[in-house]
Amino acid sequence: MKDKLQSPSMFIGVQGDDIISFGSGQPDLPPPERVFKILPKYRQFKYGLIPGQVNLRRALAKQYGAKADDFVVTNGASEALDLVFRAIGKPGDKILLHKPYYYSYPPLLEFNHLKAVCTETVKGKIDFRDFDEKVRGCKAVLINSPSNPTGRIQEVNTLKQIEKLCADLDITIISDEVYKDLIYERENYMLSGPHVVTINSFSKTYAMCGFRVGYLYSNDKEIVNKAIDIKTHSSMNTNILGQEMAYEATKVPEDYIKNQVAIWRERRDAICDGLERLGLELWRPEGAFYVLPKIKNPRDAVWNLFKKHKVITYLGEWFGAKERIRLSYALNVDKIEEGLNRIEKYLNQG
Amino acid sequence: MKDKLQSPSMFIGVQGDDIISFGSGQPDLPPPERVFKILPKYRQFKYGLIPGQVNLRRALAKQYGAKADDFVVTNGASEALDLVFRAIGKPGDKILLHKPYYYSYPPLLEFNHLKAVCTETVKGKIDFRDFDEKVRGCKAVLINSPSNPTGRIQEVNTLKQIEKLCADLDITIISDEVYKDLIYERENYMLSGPHVVTINSFSKTYAMCGFRVGYLYSNDKEIVNKAIDIKTHSSMNTNILGQEMAYEATKVPEDYIKNQVAIWRERRDAICDGLERLGLELWRPEGAFYVLPKIKNPRDAVWNLFKKHKVITYLGEWFGAKERIRLSYALNVDKIEEGLNRIEKYLNQG
Repeated sequence: MKDKLQSPSMFIGVQGDDIISFGSGQPDLPPPERVFKILPKYRQFKYGLIPGQVNLRRALAKQYGAKADDFVVTNGASEALDLVFRAIGKPGDKILLHKPYYYSYPPLLEFNHLKAVCTETVKGKIDFRDFDEKVRGCKAVLINSPSNPTGRIQEVNTLKQIEKLCADLDITIISDEVYKDLIYERENYMLSGPHVVTINSFSKTYAMCGFRVGYLYSNDKEIVNKAIDIKTHSSMNTNILGQEMAYEATKVPEDYIKNQVAIWRERRDAICDGLERLGLELWRPEGAFYVLPKIKNPRDAVWNLFKKHKVITYLGEWFGAKERIRLSYALNVDKIEEGLNRIEKYLNQG
Repeated sequence: MKDKLQSPSMFIGVQGDDIISFGSGQPDLPPPERVFKILPKYRQFKYGLIPGQVNLRRALAKQYGAKADDFVVTNGASEALDLVFRAIGKPGDKILLHKPYYYSYPPLLEFNHLKAVCTETVKGKIDFRDFDEKVRGCKAVLINSPSNPTGRIQEVNTLKQIEKLCADLDITIISDEVYKDLIYERENYMLSGPHVVTINSFSKTYAMCGFRVGYLYSNDKEIVNKAIDIKTHSSMNTNILGQEMAYEATKVPEDYIKNQVAIWRERRDAICDGLERLGLELWRPEGAFYVLPKIKNPRDAVWNLFKKHKVITYLGEWFGAKERIRLSYALNVDKIEEGLNRIEKYLNQG
């Protein structure tokens, strides 16, 4: 039965009042109310522009100090990533990932006939010497800071070294920054350069997961135009109403984000302190809302936690971290405490 | 300047009260009102199931006499097609198209590293002998009846021959039936069989273009599961609110569709009679809302019609029909008549 632990999809749709889910990376707090306020009067229905609605791209351009034409609004960050892979890669091209990685990266590369090359990290931090060695011969590198599944951010110094090296070697940097607004330790350092593509979404910062609005941003015209060209045929415009809702989200005051970070920090402390109290070794998350503790027999742990204790966790193996399990702490502190009690029971009784 | 006539995208976003557009394939009539009625109270925001919301897939299953699990709800028919190509094809595999074809087909194949093989048609109708010859060695065939850009439907007899031949040769049939509810001549004949994938959308029948809700339906479990697997990583769930709106559309009484067809038929007659009166040869559309008349110097025609007469038409070349231009008649009869007057002026004066 444990063979069923093939991918997170086994837990999709599993719900119940008695289940504590540290599974899916989905904010439990709703989007800002103004996002819904436009709905009653909405009557548009025609095709939108392929790169995205002008008002939304202008608002993003303002945030980034960029031009509206440097953005492509997509069906979540997932489609943005997929479009970039399709735009830059030929079958057989190599893409560098840092381990542990988000579980969608390897299959996305596979579906695009690209090859993953991995650099190991030290407690989730990129080892630049290993990076420097592995990156040669790669078409692009994919950086994810803060990281899903580790919650770790990359050191600013390392990010600058990566920027320089990739510019020198003419290697595209794809920077998946969907958790950039959820950092506890410092401001986000946005990777930049002539061949950098930034990926972001409204799913995490504004809890708009189900509406699937993400985007890519780049100063590399060739990549942007190729992405638009592909999207013209592969999905056309992103849902026009989702984009209008995202546009509303761009108007939310900065305090909203600050308040969110305060809530996430409290949860981070609750779960990390709790897991360490139970003797589990972990790398303290500096952003996002995931923690990846080491645990004995992770496969047994995920299975028994679910079957015997009604706690959903994800297998580290899905993220390239065999000895660990991933916990998403997108739930309130009471539920986190209850989850910790159940994990304690599992550790004592199996 | 005429070199700019590279693709329909040059006309995207071009609008004005004085322009008559026979360009984009976009219904001018709004979606059924009930589609918007659910908006004021909508408050969902979480991830949906990757294959699509259960209520929508159940409603579709009822329509098709099938199981909900045989459907994958997608970002329009475009994503459905793309997913099927990705699910079934390895780089270099051949896919058979009938000419003239929808302009997205060749680039979609190219982005998926697949090769297009074409069978010529006679006045838009498949010549089964040529089909039989060309299909051998293909991984799949893509049938589009009613067709964009011809508006022609394939003969039931031909469709049955294709079903049998492809079943015998174990070749997948991808049937793009997005115009199936807009046939003037007879009921749609739905291609079926163990390896048939039906593609459809809410864009044409219900004018929901901008919301991008389409789907694929197949009894071939392997294709359906592979499509879900890819979508899990390439875009995740289709916009949950778009799906809820599509679900509302499935409740619209059948009369709605009948009334739509009556409107389209009147427009078809107006434009075809008019174009024939002007001496243009055409194949009378039997469905959809496109007509593909022959015209001298099509490139000059499209260019001058736009620049001098403010009439948008599409170049037949984009659809594999060099001697023709495509007109979409998704506009009211008054505008069609005005468009015809301007085309007459162009034919007389250039």
